[in-house]
Amino acid sequence: MQKIMLAHGGGGQEMNDLINGLIFKIFNNEILSQNNDSAILNLSGKLAFSTDSFVVSPTKFPGGDIGKIAVCGTANDLAMVGAKPRYISCALIIEEGLDINELKDILSSMKSTADEAGVAIVCGDTKVVSKGSCDKIFINTSGVGEIIKEVRIENLKSGARVLLSGDVGRHGAVVLASRNELRLQSHLQSDCKPLYKIVEALLNAGITPLAMRDATRGGLSAVLNEWAKACKRDIKISEDSIAVSDEVMGICEILGFEPYELANEGTFLLAVEPKDEIRAVEILREFNSNANSIGEILDSNKSNVIMQNSYGATRFMEPPKGELLPRIC
Amino acid sequence: MQKIMLAHGGGGQEMNDLINGLIFKIFNNEILSQNNDSAILNLSGKLAFSTDSFVVSPTKFPGGDIGKIAVCGTANDLAMVGAKPRYISCALIIEEGLDINELKDILSSMKSTADEAGVAIVCGDTKVVSKGSCDKIFINTSGVGEIIKEVRIENLKSGARVLLSGDVGRHGAVVLASRNELRLQSHLQSDCKPLYKIVEALLNAGITPLAMRDATRGGLSAVLNEWAKACKRDIKISEDSIAVSDEVMGICEILGFEPYELANEGTFLLAVEPKDEIRAVEILREFNSNANSIGEILDSNKSNVIMQNSYGATRFMEPPKGELLPRIC
Repeated sequence: MQKIMLAHGGGGQEMNDLINGLIFKIFNNEILSQNNDSAILNLSGKLAFSTDSFVVSPTKFPGGDIGKIAVCGTANDLAMVGAKPRYISCALIIEEGLDINELKDILSSMKSTADEAGVAIVCGDTKVVSKGSCDKIFINTSGVGEIIKEVRIENLKSGARVLLSGDVGRHGAVVLASRNELRLQSHLQSDCKPLYKIVEALLNAGITPLAMRDATRGGLSAVLNEWAKACKRDIKISEDSIAVSDEVMGICEILGFEPYELANEGTFLLAVEPKDEIRAVEILREFNSNANSIGEILDSNKSNVIMQNSYGATRFMEPPKGELLPRIC
Repeated sequence: MQKIMLAHGGGGQEMNDLINGLIFKIFNNEILSQNNDSAILNLSGKLAFSTDSFVVSPTKFPGGDIGKIAVCGTANDLAMVGAKPRYISCALIIEEGLDINELKDILSSMKSTADEAGVAIVCGDTKVVSKGSCDKIFINTSGVGEIIKEVRIENLKSGARVLLSGDVGRHGAVVLASRNELRLQSHLQSDCKPLYKIVEALLNAGITPLAMRDATRGGLSAVLNEWAKACKRDIKISEDSIAVSDEVMGICEILGFEPYELANEGTFLLAVEPKDEIRAVEILREFNSNANSIGEILDSNKSNVIMQNSYGATRFMEPPKGELLPRIC
């Protein structure tokens, strides 16, 4: 079994062989193969630019792997400002000794996810660090997209309806359950997926998103609290309207986590004008039947997230604190 | 002394405090502070896009640190295709336990280098991994630049003159000498610096670069061999014309390295038409008196780099092989 050696990151012959013989072949793309110091792109108008590093452990989990999440994460950050993801980069930090077949699987997963998301991987970088200086592989992707309809958090306002594109907590629960020391058995899959197609369907239907954000680290709770703070308004949420699968709920009960604080990788929050609410939920449900309208932004001057349960009782949904789950993405 | 904790990467309150209270304050830039999922940029025409991860060890060395090198590396990759660097991203992977003051110094160094290079740091990401899962701090920067004059490696051709912007091997030698286990004493400084100002001066003088490349990992030797391969021509180099400082030569003699294979972080190769040679060298010397014309691309069908010494004897400058220096950038 061939392994990654320090020489694969040294800038010499071995690195050229790895890049030309493996990485370029898998990503297979004209701009990348031109082998210039930078990719040369034709783009115009307003652009979105985003970056994310991925350190998820384990690197493979039900429903995805670090390669898939690395492409989805950045492509989704672009989609959330109303941009069509176009180009992404791939920078690898690899631990000496990684099995080359494992690297091949991760790169292939990046390529197929990039194809699904409609983006080309046009530039990259490869570093190898000695055994023990990183944990297997870390991937950074950065992305450039064309803004189709500019969506900014500052457009949030009183009266806006808050919609959620699916059930929450799956990615966090799956990664947690996949960690060796836990050995939890479940059929749960991560929600990890590219989101631009959903955004495109919303825009094509004439819906103007006031704000969008994928509920990654810190989950639903982090996004809602950030939004409440950004628009200086209370946000009222109905607890019953938030879908959580039985399996996620089960894992949370065993381990003492809050499903609203668990990371998602293909589930997002959308704020719309009241007139767009019904149509937007219909469109979201074409992609995930668990999508729902979960609340609204109130006309107040505070910045709390208030959650009401089915008995009418309310409590604050606090911003997440503490360690939560490290290395979830 | 405050330390980075896992909670600083968890997506909750502590991460918000780190990002808003430290990172945004140091980088201090309007686009970043808008806090959208992606930076929203106004750019037009042809763009350059590049990425690099930095894992240099030690993180601080004479003439720079990981923050400075992270900005220079990506800004220079943009400059090498004839692009004016405009925007960069900053993605941090931090080991739990890193002293926050050390992080502050690194971020401040990124900011001052970005100012010098004329780029704004407009988006970012912060991950924290548990102690032992990475070595102190790894930084990825990706960059977007506006192409002023498109420079592609495919323009290399017979007759082109090969120019070198300064003496070689300083960055590699300095990092090597800084490693604790060696304790070599020298006054040598890394050549790490942003290069676009030099490129701009060349373009302003009406010089059309056929190709440019900064001689980072694998050094001068890697770039020349890559160029010879890309244009399928021999490249002939005069050994006497390549400046190497006495200190770099000394470190190489002690440790058995070849100065032409040592990394540089602010020194580049430039290929120009014969008519542009003299003027281009003059301009390069305004920035570094060691700049020189070092050779030319021959009219042959091989891809060797042939180095001639002062006695007229020739030998091949082989492409670098093996481990070279790990974690040099």
